[in-house]
Amino acid sequence: MTVGAIEAGGTKFVCGLFDADCSDLRKPKLLASRSVPTTSPAETLQASLDFFISASKTLGVGKPDSVGIGSFGPVDLRISSPTWGYITSTPKPGWQNAEVAGFFRERLDTPVAFDTDVNAAAYGEFLWGAAKGLKDFIYITVGTGIGGGVFSNNDLIHGLTHPEMGHIKLQRQPGDDYPGACPYHHDCFEGMASGPAIGARWGHRAEELGPEHEAWKLEARYLAKAFAAYTFVLSPERIMMGGGVGMRPGLAEEVALLVGEELGGYIAALDSPARLKDYIVRPLLGAEAGLYGAAALALRYCMA
Amino acid sequence: MTVGAIEAGGTKFVCGLFDADCSDLRKPKLLASRSVPTTSPAETLQASLDFFISASKTLGVGKPDSVGIGSFGPVDLRISSPTWGYITSTPKPGWQNAEVAGFFRERLDTPVAFDTDVNAAAYGEFLWGAAKGLKDFIYITVGTGIGGGVFSNNDLIHGLTHPEMGHIKLQRQPGDDYPGACPYHHDCFEGMASGPAIGARWGHRAEELGPEHEAWKLEARYLAKAFAAYTFVLSPERIMMGGGVGMRPGLAEEVALLVGEELGGYIAALDSPARLKDYIVRPLLGAEAGLYGAAALALRYCMA
Repeated sequence: MTVGAIEAGGTKFVCGLFDADCSDLRKPKLLASRSVPTTSPAETLQASLDFFISASKTLGVGKPDSVGIGSFGPVDLRISSPTWGYITSTPKPGWQNAEVAGFFRERLDTPVAFDTDVNAAAYGEFLWGAAKGLKDFIYITVGTGIGGGVFSNNDLIHGLTHPEMGHIKLQRQPGDDYPGACPYHHDCFEGMASGPAIGARWGHRAEELGPEHEAWKLEARYLAKAFAAYTFVLSPERIMMGGGVGMRPGLAEEVALLVGEELGGYIAALDSPARLKDYIVRPLLGAEAGLYGAAALALRYCMA
Repeated sequence: MTVGAIEAGGTKFVCGLFDADCSDLRKPKLLASRSVPTTSPAETLQASLDFFISASKTLGVGKPDSVGIGSFGPVDLRISSPTWGYITSTPKPGWQNAEVAGFFRERLDTPVAFDTDVNAAAYGEFLWGAAKGLKDFIYITVGTGIGGGVFSNNDLIHGLTHPEMGHIKLQRQPGDDYPGACPYHHDCFEGMASGPAIGARWGHRAEELGPEHEAWKLEARYLAKAFAAYTFVLSPERIMMGGGVGMRPGLAEEVALLVGEELGGYIAALDSPARLKDYIVRPLLGAEAGLYGAAALALRYCMA
């Protein structure tokens, strides 16, 4: 079958057309992809649609049998809601209350699976990555923003809306007087530890800070504080850390050891460096977790 | 059928014998109960067993068809573990690595369902209380300790071990210099807001502090901070607050409004006082949530 996937981000929509097999759920084969800049909803959605139509025609595979979308948010995921498949209260100009899923469902006349970008990535890691065989785990992205997808009791968590894990408050590290970058909560986790927060605190973009810069020690500490909180609340079997900042070499290993400190010896199952290293890991799909995750969502329609 | 239930607490084991019906899962009828002080494991377990044997004989109902236990912890819930059904690393003298579930399974020759006290209470609220029909919710007890049970995607969360929600760290309220009562984490949620923490901070037992005492304003603020964090991480449909402190009249309503402040307007589904009041509620089973919850666990064996 042919599957369409969109990693719908605030900067770009990455669209992919995949050859997939529902009988064994093996990792699908990427046939073609295109990156569309996120401008206005009308323009961005149309350009994404054009890609699916032209690529499937060029490849001679017919239009997608289903489409999966992992979107920036917040999004409306309540199936019974009249605004299901919309991006809702985002601060991104022009995208408040923008219909996304319905656009593709109508124009391609296919089922569309719609979820948060991080839930999609979590689902991709479950099928083909570092969460294979687990029933309770978290996927966190640390980059321009911080968000998390949660898989619990063998499925993605939605609940009242969907997790917004980047917005928990953390105790400040002594001596850190940076006020925080979150427009809603100032010094929440995202406000203190996202890429832009690192840039604003140190006066240099995160990518420009060398591996010995003190910024990384502080960053690892905040990540560890957050992951300890997630551990106490959710008791996941593993936490995957992706995103531009999160994938930085060595960071996951450093954070893992600090998580042990933050837990204070309370969780016996995480009482050794070896166990902690297996607990905080990088996603196996790496930078492709988002796009493959969206493809994974699309496959939910043939998995019943 | 006859069902045995134990609310296994650090101060007492409350044992109940119930008449239950698996065909419609109506609320079971309590036939007899006994409160056994928690002394040594050998003594406490034997006294609990004696109750089940003597009560079922007196009532002429035969021994329990299954037993449910909601226990203080931490506990080992991994079915494949050789120490499944044990209390593990508790600070309570004599109870480290104490076998609980196996004791009753062997001596009564019945299936035993074993979980944390708060997971049991959550399950009771799901079947017969304030969480009926929900698929994602939290039950929190605030009393001698603070703990939470989580129901997610239609079942209790276990994960790596089980949630220990009372041990997340919160930002201190300005001016509060109480060091915290948790032997593991000092100023974690439980360390700052449990009954003993209130007593130590104000020099009077929580029960003795009048409704106008400033202690309650601070208590409500810490509860709201924690519930906001749980909301961001789990996105539950509802949070039930039980326990000696948590059930205090008016507290849930006050906390609900403060949760709105702490969320900073970020969760659209919780943007009004009415919605918040329906979000933070007292458990309907009240002080009986623990015992009925244990009975609910026992019924899991006939629910497949």
